[in-house]
Amino acid sequence: MALTRHDSSFYTDYLERRNEIGPKLVIFMVGLPARGKSYISHKLRRFLSWMGFRTKIFNVGNRRRVADAATTHDATFFDPNNARARELREQVALDTLEELISWLKSGGKVAIHDATNSTRVRREALIHRVSQEPNISFMFMESICTDPIILETNIRMKLNSPDYRNMDPETAIADFKARTNNYEKAYEPLGDVEEKLDVSYVKVFNVGKKSIAYNVRGYLMSQCVFFLGNMHIADRVIYLTRHGESEYNREGKIGGDPPLTDQGRKFAAALARFAQERHPIAPACAEKSKADATFGGGGGGQLQLWTSKLRRTVETAHFFDEQYEVTTMRFLNEIYSGLCEGMTYDDIKKVYPEEYRTRQANKLIGRYPGGENYMDVIERLRPVVVELERLSTDVLIITHNVVMRTLLAYFTGMDLLEMTLLDVPLHTVYCLKPKPYGVEIAYQRGVVVICITPPSEH
Amino acid sequence: MALTRHDSSFYTDYLERRNEIGPKLVIFMVGLPARGKSYISHKLRRFLSWMGFRTKIFNVGNRRRVADAATTHDATFFDPNNARARELREQVALDTLEELISWLKSGGKVAIHDATNSTRVRREALIHRVSQEPNISFMFMESICTDPIILETNIRMKLNSPDYRNMDPETAIADFKARTNNYEKAYEPLGDVEEKLDVSYVKVFNVGKKSIAYNVRGYLMSQCVFFLGNMHIADRVIYLTRHGESEYNREGKIGGDPPLTDQGRKFAAALARFAQERHPIAPACAEKSKADATFGGGGGGQLQLWTSKLRRTVETAHFFDEQYEVTTMRFLNEIYSGLCEGMTYDDIKKVYPEEYRTRQANKLIGRYPGGENYMDVIERLRPVVVELERLSTDVLIITHNVVMRTLLAYFTGMDLLEMTLLDVPLHTVYCLKPKPYGVEIAYQRGVVVICITPPSEH
Repeated sequence: MALTRHDSSFYTDYLERRNEIGPKLVIFMVGLPARGKSYISHKLRRFLSWMGFRTKIFNVGNRRRVADAATTHDATFFDPNNARARELREQVALDTLEELISWLKSGGKVAIHDATNSTRVRREALIHRVSQEPNISFMFMESICTDPIILETNIRMKLNSPDYRNMDPETAIADFKARTNNYEKAYEPLGDVEEKLDVSYVKVFNVGKKSIAYNVRGYLMSQCVFFLGNMHIADRVIYLTRHGESEYNREGKIGGDPPLTDQGRKFAAALARFAQERHPIAPACAEKSKADATFGGGGGGQLQLWTSKLRRTVETAHFFDEQYEVTTMRFLNEIYSGLCEGMTYDDIKKVYPEEYRTRQANKLIGRYPGGENYMDVIERLRPVVVELERLSTDVLIITHNVVMRTLLAYFTGMDLLEMTLLDVPLHTVYCLKPKPYGVEIAYQRGVVVICITPPSEH
Repeated sequence: MALTRHDSSFYTDYLERRNEIGPKLVIFMVGLPARGKSYISHKLRRFLSWMGFRTKIFNVGNRRRVADAATTHDATFFDPNNARARELREQVALDTLEELISWLKSGGKVAIHDATNSTRVRREALIHRVSQEPNISFMFMESICTDPIILETNIRMKLNSPDYRNMDPETAIADFKARTNNYEKAYEPLGDVEEKLDVSYVKVFNVGKKSIAYNVRGYLMSQCVFFLGNMHIADRVIYLTRHGESEYNREGKIGGDPPLTDQGRKFAAALARFAQERHPIAPACAEKSKADATFGGGGGGQLQLWTSKLRRTVETAHFFDEQYEVTTMRFLNEIYSGLCEGMTYDDIKKVYPEEYRTRQANKLIGRYPGGENYMDVIERLRPVVVELERLSTDVLIITHNVVMRTLLAYFTGMDLLEMTLLDVPLHTVYCLKPKPYGVEIAYQRGVVVICITPPSEH
């Protein structure tokens, strides 16, 4: 059985501390149905969990369906004039908040209250309750969507909701639009009232095209707002690969700065062909390409190429046409193994038996003398991840085993301890296509492309 | 003569690349007089220059005074009905834009057009002109200030403006308020018009209390918006110090992970006394203190304590009462010297004469084999600097020589090449108080406090 993120056994000192010190945070979502509240909730949860914060989504709709299983929740249920239903919905929202507060008190760090929360009365009740908790801060996060194309896509996705199970799609869409109309009758967006109460909030329009932030305080809120400010839903591909085989790979040594082997250079040549087939560079494109500079200082284009500062990734980028702009960044270097750089695992076991043992027991926090642990790597990759969210061009990243594990864990929402055990073979390209719920992943080893079922975050 | 940031000689490959690749950026400020436009302009310039981007402010008011030196520019000059003056002001704004564009084309990266730019007609003229440049992107940045206390402070600072030289203060303030009234008559805030044109903009209310971002694209814009989102003007102190003397300091060796000497431990004890005198921890405060957790995962309080992950800074924090929450972070580690860690300068000269020579010639980009250069250190300190901007509690940072130089350069706006030559002695505490224009610095060596004149950014 895989360890889960909530096993108390694996949250040793560092992570406990990160979750216990400082205030907890509640994020109350606000918005009409199909405006991307759940999309934002899942994205935030994935980002925060990856940083080591225990984060959980509390969905009010799910609770409503359980609490009132005998009733069909069609559009009439959401009519503001339906007093019984309105009362039930308010009650369920507050019950969900109670459950959420208990969870925070028993070790959670960030809780997301995923509901429409679209009236002032509702929000005042939520504020009233959460303000009684001395160590819990809170903010509202409203998602507004006016772009008809995004809206239509969102609504079509709603057909998968349990409320529409066994319903003909056209009837379901008609019912859903009627439900939304009912919400709109009573909808009160965030604004003056919240500012008068000096409550923290963020409004996001059309998946990040515009945003309004009010009274954002503290590290967690600030990270959430920055992260959301960089999101977009344009199609693009992120290619991830380790460097070609290095001399140390062959000798079973870790770290260091070795060159590629002949085998590794063959992979480098194959990688350049692979990229050039998928992203041929026409002279005109190369010119246009400089449009989106990245934080590595590098240029953009159809395909950006990022490597670490280490010889084995730089050599792996060697065969690319010079029109591909290569950006090298230290952020993408392999985990640093301190005094164990250049040693084999057998050497380490002999020379540092104690450190070897504690590191094997938990690589998230264990480290070789003077080296980094996985949480250090996550911390230094945070700007890279935000930059990858922001970027709308395709990018090929040539990096290392541990960095690959860490980036794959971010994109798949994988458990952190599982991440440290992930097998990431050499000479394999992972193709990631961010999708509304999760990431579609394929990987290519040699000439074979294997597709994995896209993991769902729902 | 000190080298200046614009000497072409010192912008070698790395920095040239950073300034040449990707689009240039123009930031057009918008806002009534005394709303903090210049404050924001200077802060942004300091941040971007520190990151290695050539950034310059083009102040329209200064140009106006030169262009029309014969006329007194009292409030009547700013009356929208004063046709001659209005025409002159529009012309000067566009002339300034021409100058700015020429500068960008001759090697600049980010140019800030510092003016009220408060009417649509003016902004449309600016957009029309800048849109003709294929490789220049632009955004508007509006500062709105409604807080009467901030406003009054801002207005009092305006007495230093050349327009009010030789004027009695009360007359000057009355004139200034009349000028502002004249601007208000014609003032059109950013909003629907800009959104319809799909122009990027940010509106900042009351120094970051609230912000609106529209269509923020690209790395540079995104960094500017994130940076401004974290600013505040609350009073606080940032203490910076190196660790106490280490065994390597005594032996003339660099890097490594040595312990403190007896002398170093004496400094550690003195540092704890110094902090406890200035920031006594009462039990109640210690409890309250957890209110503002930082990204190191650590807690807050009256005084936060940050160290690097290296033994010599951790030992320097040893004598602090355990109620001070200590956060250790790898971001604050000393510059990494690769294969030269633990060597003396004489050793390095002998073993790596070529690397020694190139590094001495330019430490911004020169590095020892496998080590970091100063630009790498700046890159990894960027999240620390944003966090320091955000934080409103006092903080004491115990770190290392190069990190000290880098942080001091950020806060003083010092030239980057000068930064690499800065003398930062051991056993000295620098006390930084961020002020509206620049930072007030004092430093304490032993028991003597020496105050340095606050550097002005004006």
